[in-house]
Amino acid sequence: MEELQTILDDIVTAARAEPDKGQVASYIPQLANIDPDQFGIAVCLAGGELVCAGDADTLFSIQSISKVFTTTIALGKLGDTLWQRVGREPSGDPFNSIIQLEHENGKPRNPFINAGAIAVVDAIMQGRQPKETLAEILAFIRWIANDEAIYIDDKVARSEVLTGDRNAALAHFMASCGRLSNNVDKVLGVYFHHCSVAMSCVQLARAAQFLVSDGVDLSTGARVLSTQRARRINSLMMMCGHYDGSGEFAYRVGLPGKSGVGGGIIAVVPDVASIAVWSPGLDKIGNSRLGTRALETLTRRTGWSVFGR
Amino acid sequence: MEELQTILDDIVTAARAEPDKGQVASYIPQLANIDPDQFGIAVCLAGGELVCAGDADTLFSIQSISKVFTTTIALGKLGDTLWQRVGREPSGDPFNSIIQLEHENGKPRNPFINAGAIAVVDAIMQGRQPKETLAEILAFIRWIANDEAIYIDDKVARSEVLTGDRNAALAHFMASCGRLSNNVDKVLGVYFHHCSVAMSCVQLARAAQFLVSDGVDLSTGARVLSTQRARRINSLMMMCGHYDGSGEFAYRVGLPGKSGVGGGIIAVVPDVASIAVWSPGLDKIGNSRLGTRALETLTRRTGWSVFGR
Amino acid sequence: MEELQTILDDIVTAARAEPDKGQVASYIPQLANIDPDQFGIAVCLAGGELVCAGDADTLFSIQSISKVFTTTIALGKLGDTLWQRVGREPSGDPFNSIIQLEHENGKPRNPFINAGAIAVVDAIMQGRQPKETLAEILAFIRWIANDEAIYIDDKVARSEVLTGDRNAALAHFMASCGRLSNNVDKVLGVYFHHCSVAMSCVQLARAAQFLVSDGVDLSTGARVLSTQRARRINSLMMMCGHYDGSGEFAYRVGLPGKSGVGGGIIAVVPDVASIAVWSPGLDKIGNSRLGTRALETLTRRTGWSVFGR
Amino acid sequence: MEELQTILDDIVTAARAEPDKGQVASYIPQLANIDPDQFGIAVCLAGGELVCAGDADTLFSIQSISKVFTTTIALGKLGDTLWQRVGREPSGDPFNSIIQLEHENGKPRNPFINAGAIAVVDAIMQGRQPKETLAEILAFIRWIANDEAIYIDDKVARSEVLTGDRNAALAHFMASCGRLSNNVDKVLGVYFHHCSVAMSCVQLARAAQFLVSDGVDLSTGARVLSTQRARRINSLMMMCGHYDGSGEFAYRVGLPGKSGVGGGIIAVVPDVASIAVWSPGLDKIGNSRLGTRALETLTRRTGWSVFGR
Repeated sequence: MEELQTILDDIVTAARAEPDKGQVASYIPQLANIDPDQFGIAVCLAGGELVCAGDADTLFSIQSISKVFTTTIALGKLGDTLWQRVGREPSGDPFNSIIQLEHENGKPRNPFINAGAIAVVDAIMQGRQPKETLAEILAFIRWIANDEAIYIDDKVARSEVLTGDRNAALAHFMASCGRLSNNVDKVLGVYFHHCSVAMSCVQLARAAQFLVSDGVDLSTGARVLSTQRARRINSLMMMCGHYDGSGEFAYRVGLPGKSGVGGGIIAVVPDVASIAVWSPGLDKIGNSRLGTRALETLTRRTGWSVFGR
Repeated sequence: MEELQTILDDIVTAARAEPDKGQVASYIPQLANIDPDQFGIAVCLAGGELVCAGDADTLFSIQSISKVFTTTIALGKLGDTLWQRVGREPSGDPFNSIIQLEHENGKPRNPFINAGAIAVVDAIMQGRQPKETLAEILAFIRWIANDEAIYIDDKVARSEVLTGDRNAALAHFMASCGRLSNNVDKVLGVYFHHCSVAMSCVQLARAAQFLVSDGVDLSTGARVLSTQRARRINSLMMMCGHYDGSGEFAYRVGLPGKSGVGGGIIAVVPDVASIAVWSPGLDKIGNSRLGTRALETLTRRTGWSVFGR
Repeated sequence: MEELQTILDDIVTAARAEPDKGQVASYIPQLANIDPDQFGIAVCLAGGELVCAGDADTLFSIQSISKVFTTTIALGKLGDTLWQRVGREPSGDPFNSIIQLEHENGKPRNPFINAGAIAVVDAIMQGRQPKETLAEILAFIRWIANDEAIYIDDKVARSEVLTGDRNAALAHFMASCGRLSNNVDKVLGVYFHHCSVAMSCVQLARAAQFLVSDGVDLSTGARVLSTQRARRINSLMMMCGHYDGSGEFAYRVGLPGKSGVGGGIIAVVPDVASIAVWSPGLDKIGNSRLGTRALETLTRRTGWSVFGR
Repeated sequence: MEELQTILDDIVTAARAEPDKGQVASYIPQLANIDPDQFGIAVCLAGGELVCAGDADTLFSIQSISKVFTTTIALGKLGDTLWQRVGREPSGDPFNSIIQLEHENGKPRNPFINAGAIAVVDAIMQGRQPKETLAEILAFIRWIANDEAIYIDDKVARSEVLTGDRNAALAHFMASCGRLSNNVDKVLGVYFHHCSVAMSCVQLARAAQFLVSDGVDLSTGARVLSTQRARRINSLMMMCGHYDGSGEFAYRVGLPGKSGVGGGIIAVVPDVASIAVWSPGLDKIGNSRLGTRALETLTRRTGWSVFGR
């Protein structure tokens, strides 16, 4: 393997030179105003060593990457009864599609489409108030990232609420099928806020460490999740982590990963490394255009893949 | 790791004792009349060592497992232009669904649903007659399985033709969208025959060896496919190998795999082993019920998974 | 033609004797607790003469029949620009389906499915408050029914709000597509209240008089709508008045009509009569089971049909 | 009412002057090569008097208008058991959609979409050969049109067979659901040929006479169908006669009607007249653009409508 730092530096150089960076998410002002020329990447090796390049310490809105964290919390709390509330199949539909819900009586296909993530949030609320639930989610993220400074960007969250009609439609639809245990507006409040966590590539790569080592955070020695469940989070990311672009990501990158419309992606090389990359411009499906390409380059040059030795 | 032979023996014992073996595929007499109590499993380790148990040498109809072989041939012949003819995303729909075709202008979502496999067969025909195309497919399978005795079961193939209206609908639909290059009836002829290859677990496990070692068949040293393409076949099996049960298989088994309605499943542990299991009874989605369970047990006891170390 | 009174009496007798009256709408308590044995019918002849039988003066919740009145108001106010907001094709889907909305970018297929009626309410609000809009709708109904006593049943309306998640999903979905001009919650408030108007068969038959005579209420001489628009309301009722049972209603009854889940149906025999019938038990699609049968008997015995002389 | 001849002459003049005549059907050469400037219209009054203008005697391919005749034959032969084979609801989908078939287990929504017409043809074959069945259909059309010269255009029929993959897909799909009683290829043969009947506006208007007078052909006194069934054919034309443009046609024209991709439309004014119009250019849905507009003008100037007096 080449020197990892060289590869990351090359990736940053190539990304900076690329004229077509994709389209920044436009539906809320806080995302639309992001400078599309920013680019960061961080790799956290299994032993804890961190290699990074570009704007790896710049904070951005993690958006749907948060779904990995809430699903981890939910699987820890509810175990396999979680799957009574949400499925674990790729949906074949866009992230915000409501069609599948009507066809399948309000049960979301998987926890990483919006409807599924709303159902997961509902599952972990367990009758508590939004504030308490958010505190738990934030505490969990801080713990696995080993960084108490991580916070929810209220300005983004408020924008999400104001422009959240599509997600409100999904939540009310599920409620109409008797799928939600908590008040719809409260569930939506938690959902919008937990998407608005601000993190850097470095923080995200660290936060994903437990997925590298079968549930144990090797830097701290803490067991975050059982071996089996950690692997299952990886399988969910592989199958559903990029919406209707999950097959494309598996084909091109060959790693479990999860994207957010803020332009971030986390990916996991089991036993080897966790990766976080960030470039705000998105492809048509809503995944970071240059982030995906960076991961493709990184895996080609390192040989990392779950599909080969 | 425990002794592999012990694990396989235990799996056979458990399978034989299981009262609910699922439903044998009923749509053609040759599959419907199979004795559901048969069960075989074979593991071919990376070094070439073979461990098996139960009816591992009994021939059965490989059905959709053949799609892995034709997709391998097509990727070798056409390279990435194959993806102009067929997508590589999970479909979220049953194996024989026609809805997705209408929504996406006749382009099948992936090569492992029926429509996609028909498109792949059409792609490798390249104007030749069915007989020549079938000869090429059979020669390829014999080569990678290192067994010249492998044959197409004509009785099964004739039955498939007689009861193949659903597949004929898929093929004519694609033709109506200008998606097929060859005569519809000829393409269907090849399709039905190549599903009717008869193989044993031992033969299938050997045939999948090249997917364990990045495209090289370690027993013979022959390179079947480039490293990148071999990994991509694995990624396709992971994402789409079990139709709308692919997420379930990834979650429970954690390996790339491909099932057939004959009750067979192949699975790949990169760098470690290829596996073939066979139990004719199917679950509701059309995947082998006890075959899936056997793979779940095998991976739990061996620790094999692409999602953890 | 037989004596109309005899026919109506026979219909009431037959309805009372029928053991299977269908299922009363169960989703809100105020509808679920209705006595299913009630049955009323009223025919208002073109000259103004009223013939009725059974519980023709009992008030019931008109529910979706109100959509005829709001569509009339909207067509009067907006003219054909209304059709930029809502289509005029049968949907082929249930009354509360959201699938069509996603396929067609949030534009409801017609004004008589729930999504369409919400869009119509939004169209007539024109920035006003719910109270003012409801006052206008109620004034219109009172005017065409020539009865100032007609009112909105607040108890029903409040129940609708509490159980209205499915309609909230439809409204938020349309809002997410930029289809609503007013605040979602206010639009829903008007929607739920205008479905909760309480009327009797006699009042409804009178209210539908203007549809018999090309837009003129012959009893009062008032022109409610232009000739062309009155005919078009009839065409909309014919094509879309019974959701995905509209074809069935046209086939069996042969008249433009509109049903509500309260068990009421209005129907129009152009130049001859308006009809209102009420029986709370519904068929699987949500149309009054005995109400439909009553109209079938009535048209068979009178020869009334728009499809023959 | 104005002089009918004047109205028709005006309509022809306006049609000839219209620059945008729509797009001629392109999928088979015999239709694609038609001169788009042709335009004919014929009105057959209830008393038998014929008024026509333009190319009213020019033969064209009636295409889907033939579905009215086969449905009439089928209803006469099978009565209401026909509806076990095909529904009678508007589909909300294009004429050749296969999605509805998969959602509803292979039962076509109505007899006027392609799948439904194939099912109707299958229903009237009753084990006979295509030649016999076609002879029966042709004899029926000649009888109701009172014209023995009507024939099937073999050149068109052969073209339809060659380009009929979409219809073959529909037929095979239905066969795979056990919905067809006869051999798929034979059913398709009859289907393609009966679409290829060549008729003029004059012949079509005469052929539709029995729908004006409750099933009796007033010119000959022959009863073609019972009163009730004749009205039901009209109701089917109203609800489903223009595919997913049926609501539009009802709204704009206000009469039961049936279009064909050859550019013809028949329409019925119960008790008053049958109408046939022909202009080869189609709108996006596949209905004659100027034919529809002609009927709109005709009904506006005559006041004809089933929705008003």
